[in-house]
Amino acid sequence: MPGSSFGAAFRVTTAGESHGPGNVVIVDGCPPGIALSPADLRRELGRRRPGQSGLTTSRDEADEPEILSGVFEGCTTGTAIAILVRNADACRADYAELRRAFRPGHADFSYQAKYGRRDHRGGGRASARETVARVAAGAVARKVIADGFGGRVLGYVRQVGEVIADVSDPGAVTREHVESMPGGEPNLVRCPDLVAAVRMQALIEDVRDAGDSIGGVAEIVVTGMVAGLGEPVFDKLKADLGKALFSLPAVVGVEYGTGFGCVTLRGSEHNDAFVVEHPGDGAPPRVVTETNRHGGILGGIATGMPLLLRAAVKPTSSVALRQQTVTAAGDPTKLAVGGRHDPCLLPRFVPIAEAMVAIVLADHYLRWRGQVGASRSG
Amino acid sequence: MPGSSFGAAFRVTTAGESHGPGNVVIVDGCPPGIALSPADLRRELGRRRPGQSGLTTSRDEADEPEILSGVFEGCTTGTAIAILVRNADACRADYAELRRAFRPGHADFSYQAKYGRRDHRGGGRASARETVARVAAGAVARKVIADGFGGRVLGYVRQVGEVIADVSDPGAVTREHVESMPGGEPNLVRCPDLVAAVRMQALIEDVRDAGDSIGGVAEIVVTGMVAGLGEPVFDKLKADLGKALFSLPAVVGVEYGTGFGCVTLRGSEHNDAFVVEHPGDGAPPRVVTETNRHGGILGGIATGMPLLLRAAVKPTSSVALRQQTVTAAGDPTKLAVGGRHDPCLLPRFVPIAEAMVAIVLADHYLRWRGQVGASRSG
Amino acid sequence: MPGSSFGAAFRVTTAGESHGPGNVVIVDGCPPGIALSPADLRRELGRRRPGQSGLTTSRDEADEPEILSGVFEGCTTGTAIAILVRNADACRADYAELRRAFRPGHADFSYQAKYGRRDHRGGGRASARETVARVAAGAVARKVIADGFGGRVLGYVRQVGEVIADVSDPGAVTREHVESMPGGEPNLVRCPDLVAAVRMQALIEDVRDAGDSIGGVAEIVVTGMVAGLGEPVFDKLKADLGKALFSLPAVVGVEYGTGFGCVTLRGSEHNDAFVVEHPGDGAPPRVVTETNRHGGILGGIATGMPLLLRAAVKPTSSVALRQQTVTAAGDPTKLAVGGRHDPCLLPRFVPIAEAMVAIVLADHYLRWRGQVGASRSG
Amino acid sequence: MPGSSFGAAFRVTTAGESHGPGNVVIVDGCPPGIALSPADLRRELGRRRPGQSGLTTSRDEADEPEILSGVFEGCTTGTAIAILVRNADACRADYAELRRAFRPGHADFSYQAKYGRRDHRGGGRASARETVARVAAGAVARKVIADGFGGRVLGYVRQVGEVIADVSDPGAVTREHVESMPGGEPNLVRCPDLVAAVRMQALIEDVRDAGDSIGGVAEIVVTGMVAGLGEPVFDKLKADLGKALFSLPAVVGVEYGTGFGCVTLRGSEHNDAFVVEHPGDGAPPRVVTETNRHGGILGGIATGMPLLLRAAVKPTSSVALRQQTVTAAGDPTKLAVGGRHDPCLLPRFVPIAEAMVAIVLADHYLRWRGQVGASRSG
Repeated sequence: MPGSSFGAAFRVTTAGESHGPGNVVIVDGCPPGIALSPADLRRELGRRRPGQSGLTTSRDEADEPEILSGVFEGCTTGTAIAILVRNADACRADYAELRRAFRPGHADFSYQAKYGRRDHRGGGRASARETVARVAAGAVARKVIADGFGGRVLGYVRQVGEVIADVSDPGAVTREHVESMPGGEPNLVRCPDLVAAVRMQALIEDVRDAGDSIGGVAEIVVTGMVAGLGEPVFDKLKADLGKALFSLPAVVGVEYGTGFGCVTLRGSEHNDAFVVEHPGDGAPPRVVTETNRHGGILGGIATGMPLLLRAAVKPTSSVALRQQTVTAAGDPTKLAVGGRHDPCLLPRFVPIAEAMVAIVLADHYLRWRGQVGASRSG
Repeated sequence: MPGSSFGAAFRVTTAGESHGPGNVVIVDGCPPGIALSPADLRRELGRRRPGQSGLTTSRDEADEPEILSGVFEGCTTGTAIAILVRNADACRADYAELRRAFRPGHADFSYQAKYGRRDHRGGGRASARETVARVAAGAVARKVIADGFGGRVLGYVRQVGEVIADVSDPGAVTREHVESMPGGEPNLVRCPDLVAAVRMQALIEDVRDAGDSIGGVAEIVVTGMVAGLGEPVFDKLKADLGKALFSLPAVVGVEYGTGFGCVTLRGSEHNDAFVVEHPGDGAPPRVVTETNRHGGILGGIATGMPLLLRAAVKPTSSVALRQQTVTAAGDPTKLAVGGRHDPCLLPRFVPIAEAMVAIVLADHYLRWRGQVGASRSG
Repeated sequence: MPGSSFGAAFRVTTAGESHGPGNVVIVDGCPPGIALSPADLRRELGRRRPGQSGLTTSRDEADEPEILSGVFEGCTTGTAIAILVRNADACRADYAELRRAFRPGHADFSYQAKYGRRDHRGGGRASARETVARVAAGAVARKVIADGFGGRVLGYVRQVGEVIADVSDPGAVTREHVESMPGGEPNLVRCPDLVAAVRMQALIEDVRDAGDSIGGVAEIVVTGMVAGLGEPVFDKLKADLGKALFSLPAVVGVEYGTGFGCVTLRGSEHNDAFVVEHPGDGAPPRVVTETNRHGGILGGIATGMPLLLRAAVKPTSSVALRQQTVTAAGDPTKLAVGGRHDPCLLPRFVPIAEAMVAIVLADHYLRWRGQVGASRSG
Repeated sequence: MPGSSFGAAFRVTTAGESHGPGNVVIVDGCPPGIALSPADLRRELGRRRPGQSGLTTSRDEADEPEILSGVFEGCTTGTAIAILVRNADACRADYAELRRAFRPGHADFSYQAKYGRRDHRGGGRASARETVARVAAGAVARKVIADGFGGRVLGYVRQVGEVIADVSDPGAVTREHVESMPGGEPNLVRCPDLVAAVRMQALIEDVRDAGDSIGGVAEIVVTGMVAGLGEPVFDKLKADLGKALFSLPAVVGVEYGTGFGCVTLRGSEHNDAFVVEHPGDGAPPRVVTETNRHGGILGGIATGMPLLLRAAVKPTSSVALRQQTVTAAGDPTKLAVGGRHDPCLLPRFVPIAEAMVAIVLADHYLRWRGQVGASRSG
């Protein structure tokens, strides 16, 4: 009932604040026998890490994970996995003023209203710092879905401000496209359309230099899907993925396939025709859709086509410009949010969103195995 | 773990198919002492009812609810409330062909892939018929939030195809605006902008006459909100509302406040300034935001401002035009989906979406009361 | 969070009162493809049915189940199964006095204290009438565990008052022993030790004729167990079975294997030695224990040995003798509980306890399949 | 669905093994504003600590708790509380043989059967070492129920082997009786009947010296109860308490009030009469029962009388005597379990059982507040 757990069969529970000793995640339900090492976690944590470039906050965190349980001799045991990531660079001085006033766009006021008190330091539990625990859990989830059915989750930045990337075939994008520029230097924005990536980077730098911030859209694609994942009625795959993405800070919109763009199409234009695909090489024929306007889910259940979803991320609420607000005592005041903030959340949002999608898929994969998957493959 | 339950403190569990004996819902956790009668349920079920106008399916259902438990001498007892709505007009002949072939845009194929079998009659469990149970539960939830904190949920159609309604002040729309035209005749489209309503109706009729279908956008506004509802991290109010709306058939996008439109704003433009409001008449001053671009939720927790959210609903998948698909045996075929279908889901979607929003709010209200609300008011 | 649901993967939700229109159960998570008919339900409901003999209440209920959903063409579809059993013989006159005074030993007072109101008719939601929904769900669960791993749940009466049955080999008891006397007439007490059965019957009749009631002990044995069911830490098999049995009205004690009798044994006497069994006929050798003092569960996980558990059932609280109590207004009064009551709950408790045990096993079987079972058999 | 979480509104999730880096617990749902310090945790952890006397294992653990989150400026914030207790004295050499063979009475075989692998060191996740996390969570729960309604949980040893304590008034026992002898030295057995305590201690020492072990019965009493806690049907207070106690290692029986002893009473003897108590001093009269054979729960809901429950704890499975078993390869072998073990679990079981009872009560208190408590007190 409280909010720090997610999932049913693959269950993730987190704790931790921005400026406490650290963040911890317990992953319960991971199948036994999956190779898992700190290196697996480090890889994903590194992509989320603050301070990785001039486009992100300068907060410096090593984000070194410690596996406290659930792994024995290099493999998961099937019992609960706990991972601890300590907070290192908790600069208290930056946050003294936040005790006094509510930052616009942040959870300061709503937490105060809910609990009658709050940890004001960097937003406390509401800080995006907590996503470090999600990314650690997501690294485990990635292994579960890769082992289980070959699922692969890939995200990238589709839009920043007015700059929209051209990604004609989402299923063909690779992590290399997203992480690296052709010359080998890192793709700081994580946009596979390199022309757009350059423009996005320039836009973010301009906004940053103006003491302001900007939002955008991330797109996530999942290939290697297995038809049948998802549950009827309330736990539709799109419902649980939607919840997962909306549980992330700053997400204000989520859409699948054609999304809001579906509105101006007729049903006859929007429906995807079913056809039989013959993969050849002795593989059995399979039912696919000619197009993928539905985004891989029908009736809430995966069709086996790539999942395709997008999240709208609002401009970072912390801006250096002075803004109107009130103090906890109810007096008007002006506040310029100092400290170290991402001028655009999108580049670091990509690995976080991927983690949440992987967690949902791991959960639904194990649920499906329990009810129907085992008997069908047996 | 299976998908037919929703909510933690106010828990809704449904069962039923399109062409079985009926649909049933169990609402567990409703507080005691709330007046509840079949008339309360009938009012909402009537708004969802098929056959209410030429814009909806001609399937004719009385949708008479029977309260099986949980109400004694006109009031809720605090124990589980079960409500049964029988299916009456289950026209089997219409669905014979659906055993053979998968309808494009529907769950026929994905259910078959998941379960290895399916109730093909009208989509079985995947039919929107199951929403009758949600609307019954939503009628209970409406009473819980009205009694509990004065919450009021109102939805309307914001867009159909290219026709966009002009709704400058969502918080000022009333149910009368949505349900009735000025002359007293029903507002068939449920759009409070009457000029747009007339154009939407004409568009839907054109599309229907062409054997096709069309989608749109519904907007939901909740007034009377109490600051503090929602949980940190995974069970943010926006996460649970997002899940609730995405759990509805045909929803392919959800957004809050500025939604996807936030992308082209700067942070300094997007943040809503906090100010102190002095309601007068002896009421205590309270913190509000000058504008409501955030849509009533910050950090996942309600700010007390009106909730504002929108859902994109795809064009009805059932169209009379012939479409390419495959049979269960894997042979290509053409299918024209006969039977009785809404050419546009939006008018009947409004009460269904309202029900889900009310259910989420009832759930979070009871959760909040348990953890913090009781001590704060005491 | 409210209390009318049980189980995670095989999820049972009930509603209904003693004197409302009926009781309903939704079983969510049942695998697809299991043959299920009203006859399967009737068989178990008939064993629980009131009025089946002079040892039970004379309330007369046909207990005819109606399957509302989840079954299509004779088989489960994998979606939620709803079953309705209407109340027929709700004799209101018997219960008029219960509005006024709290029955000793019953939930009248505690419900009033909790909810500030109550349905006084026959105990309302607290009546053992609600177990009709559990038995219907248990009939589904029995099929799941029989299909899934060959599990078979059998209960019987081990003790009534001072009369203790001699059951040297619980695993060898059959339903025929429990349900029938050698001559073919029904075994009214459901005790497989026929000498004890006759004495128990005489004792119950004596107690009944004295206007009093008596308790006893039921024993449940599960054969065909698969090693590995159960979860670590909180959801140990013994924990979930314990919860299931304690959730039944009148159960005041539960024990496994040697149970409370373990206290006077030394560890070296209590531990069961592991040995390897060679079943022959080409079946692989398997690890078993020489004795079964542990009752089939070690560390909360099934060992594959028969489950063996017992529940203590208190004497029926409703007795015809006049007892001291208070009215809802707080005045002392004397109350003789009229109406129709079982002088001893044990005979009808047996099928109810079996149902709960089957539900727990179905749930853990599906949980186990999801996490580890599928990969191990694949 | 996996087993490492407990509770709905006050939700406890644990991770950790006997010989991993440490054990961690996340407590989610604790109300804000409760004073909480490491000293509060240390007090309870110290009572559970190994090595506290010659009656317990000689494993030496400081069991120093680190609060990682959820507490700010000395008070709970309302968000998730994480507590880490590192393992210090993990003596690997003792456990080398356990990789090879299954210890009788332990979970070695059932874990291997479930997961196909296991952490053999000291039982891994199945070790009673995990209860350190429960006791930390229980220390938080104690504060919640003390603050919330004045609830106080007290346990003691009622029986060891054949030695039964005489405790005529469980509600009058104090922690001083349980923890200290009259001279001030510690009451090593935690039995408030001092004559029995001395005999129990001698018995445990004899058994220990013989390389064997012995079991017993613990009794838990909760005073300061509020009528109305507990939920109908499945989440009865006795059901959740039963699950909590059965989730503890070595518990093989649980009973309430008269428990298994109810069997030989008649209903007229067993029912507790309701009477009105006039506390005087201006306090309102209240309904109580003259006797407390029911143990404080009727219909699954608390009556306000003291809770009274008992758990049977089997003799420690680890004994120094050589026992028959099999190896993981299926060969017969003899095993003497070396290492450091409690010859009788009861003395350290008391604080662990108290913790679980406190957790259940905190959970049901918050659930009750959400549904009915807030409105009734308002």
